[in-house]
Amino acid sequence: MPVDATTDQAEQVVAGSALHAGRLITRIENGHADARAVLRSLAPHCGRAQLIGITGPPGAGKSTLVSALIRELRDRGRTVGVIAVDPSSPFSGGALLGDRDRMVETSSGDSGVFIRSLASRGASGGLAAAVNDAVDVLDAMGKDVVIVETVGVGQGEFEIATIAHTVALVLVPGYGDALQAMKAGITEIADVVVVNKGDTPGAEQTFRELASQGFERTGPDGSRPWRVPVLKASALRREGVAELVDAVDEHHRFTGQTQWRTAHEHARRRARFTAFASDRLREELLEAAVDDRSLADPYGAAEEFVEELIDAHRRLAAQRAAGAAAETEKK
Amino acid sequence: MPVDATTDQAEQVVAGSALHAGRLITRIENGHADARAVLRSLAPHCGRAQLIGITGPPGAGKSTLVSALIRELRDRGRTVGVIAVDPSSPFSGGALLGDRDRMVETSSGDSGVFIRSLASRGASGGLAAAVNDAVDVLDAMGKDVVIVETVGVGQGEFEIATIAHTVALVLVPGYGDALQAMKAGITEIADVVVVNKGDTPGAEQTFRELASQGFERTGPDGSRPWRVPVLKASALRREGVAELVDAVDEHHRFTGQTQWRTAHEHARRRARFTAFASDRLREELLEAAVDDRSLADPYGAAEEFVEELIDAHRRLAAQRAAGAAAETEKK
Repeated sequence: MPVDATTDQAEQVVAGSALHAGRLITRIENGHADARAVLRSLAPHCGRAQLIGITGPPGAGKSTLVSALIRELRDRGRTVGVIAVDPSSPFSGGALLGDRDRMVETSSGDSGVFIRSLASRGASGGLAAAVNDAVDVLDAMGKDVVIVETVGVGQGEFEIATIAHTVALVLVPGYGDALQAMKAGITEIADVVVVNKGDTPGAEQTFRELASQGFERTGPDGSRPWRVPVLKASALRREGVAELVDAVDEHHRFTGQTQWRTAHEHARRRARFTAFASDRLREELLEAAVDDRSLADPYGAAEEFVEELIDAHRRLAAQRAAGAAAETEKK
Repeated sequence: MPVDATTDQAEQVVAGSALHAGRLITRIENGHADARAVLRSLAPHCGRAQLIGITGPPGAGKSTLVSALIRELRDRGRTVGVIAVDPSSPFSGGALLGDRDRMVETSSGDSGVFIRSLASRGASGGLAAAVNDAVDVLDAMGKDVVIVETVGVGQGEFEIATIAHTVALVLVPGYGDALQAMKAGITEIADVVVVNKGDTPGAEQTFRELASQGFERTGPDGSRPWRVPVLKASALRREGVAELVDAVDEHHRFTGQTQWRTAHEHARRRARFTAFASDRLREELLEAAVDDRSLADPYGAAEEFVEELIDAHRRLAAQRAAGAAAETEKK
């Protein structure tokens, strides 16, 4: 893409164009190389949005909760972007799409809301990289809040913690082993816990059981820990949703006052540097390096290739250092 | 790990030690660097096992079907290894573990069976790389058949096609959108289709609907296509399981007679070369290259870093070529 087209793309997104944002995300999803240039232009406009992760097991009512969150946030005058990470299984497609459609319906015609689902297949650099990029697009668009919704199956729920400022874990009433599994999940990723479907039998008991645990998360700077709030909600009836927004905001303020937020942002940038460089190396170097030797002994060939590359990199660095030293001597 | 320890490890696995195979897979799962050396030693002992992928949506009864498959294969005198890919979500843990336990129970005390679940978290090079490695371990152990079971949510079901010789897609009776989604899933990955829970209402209709579609898969060499068989089974009652084994074997023979199998094996080796090299580069080079510049502009810094590396690689290759030419001239 020519430079002016890139700039134009970026400008349109920054101006808030849903059309351009949507197209850019499609290119990110499909792994188009030209999307990178646009993302680079967007970088200075990023970092303003509050990033909220919504995760939990299938059937916990995440999409309905996100719909309710959108309405609550809009009522508070905040603009919202949503990235719904679609597990993109052709087998589970039906139900998920149904929920997504409902979510889109809730907000259709409201330019303060931008909803986009992201399939996990095309993205060459893995889903996390694509989600990170899509979040940047909505951030640069000027959305006050960007919600990332992932199904808590597979690695999704662990990656979301590196993206979102606050992870809200949505659970449904459960007993025995299920309850034990929930506790493990909470200690691993949750900044806020929501027991959804609060009007169903057992919700009160599950809520009390979890609330009595006193879950805490510790930040990187050794400051006072964050007490993970446990809430009860009924997304369908829109009960407990305002409390959820309050809890998420409270966590956001809390981390903003400590080293936590900075550490998070650094980790996110570090992850994209390595993911992006790793992708490019694979495309530009590794795919081309596949030969009979690497087919016969993939491990051995890979090991040698990497050693060779590191060696080449060291030599170049040494030559440069020597060149710079000679240059200094001349003066 | 010293060389003799590596050799000893590899020898124990090749001799069929379940203890050593299990330990090695744990190291693969946790991303231990020393596992690579052992895998390299195992390589010459790999390539004998028939690799079967079992995938499908949650709740399709995959684990129960795998249990039934194990018994059927054992009755036919074949040894079996199973890698059950655990989505490792703490939230869905309960039910899955229950099924797995049942599977282990079916085969406990039978040294002709080795079952291992693989969590998707620790594996640094992504799940596909860890599964590939674990399959190699069971292959080198001498198992006649290695079954890889994955939940068809997320990317799992697409990656399994690059690993297994034959992918059996397990479905349950469904209607409308669900049926359409099934068809899409079949055309994308299935070599064999099993409508499980064949004794439940609607199974016959779903089975007929799918069987009447005439799904086909085309191999890489333009030879005659493979007609995807659609079977009906009840894993719990062990009905249709012998037919499933027959269908999988038929597909295995079919691909063995064409370029298909060779192309598959090459794709698998190519994928591990790039995945392994990519991993090592990330560990050895990229993580160390993160600096203020890459935190400020991750895309730009990554782009420059990769260009620099490619340049260094080209220079080294050119220097070598020049050296080789000078060497030739001398003679």
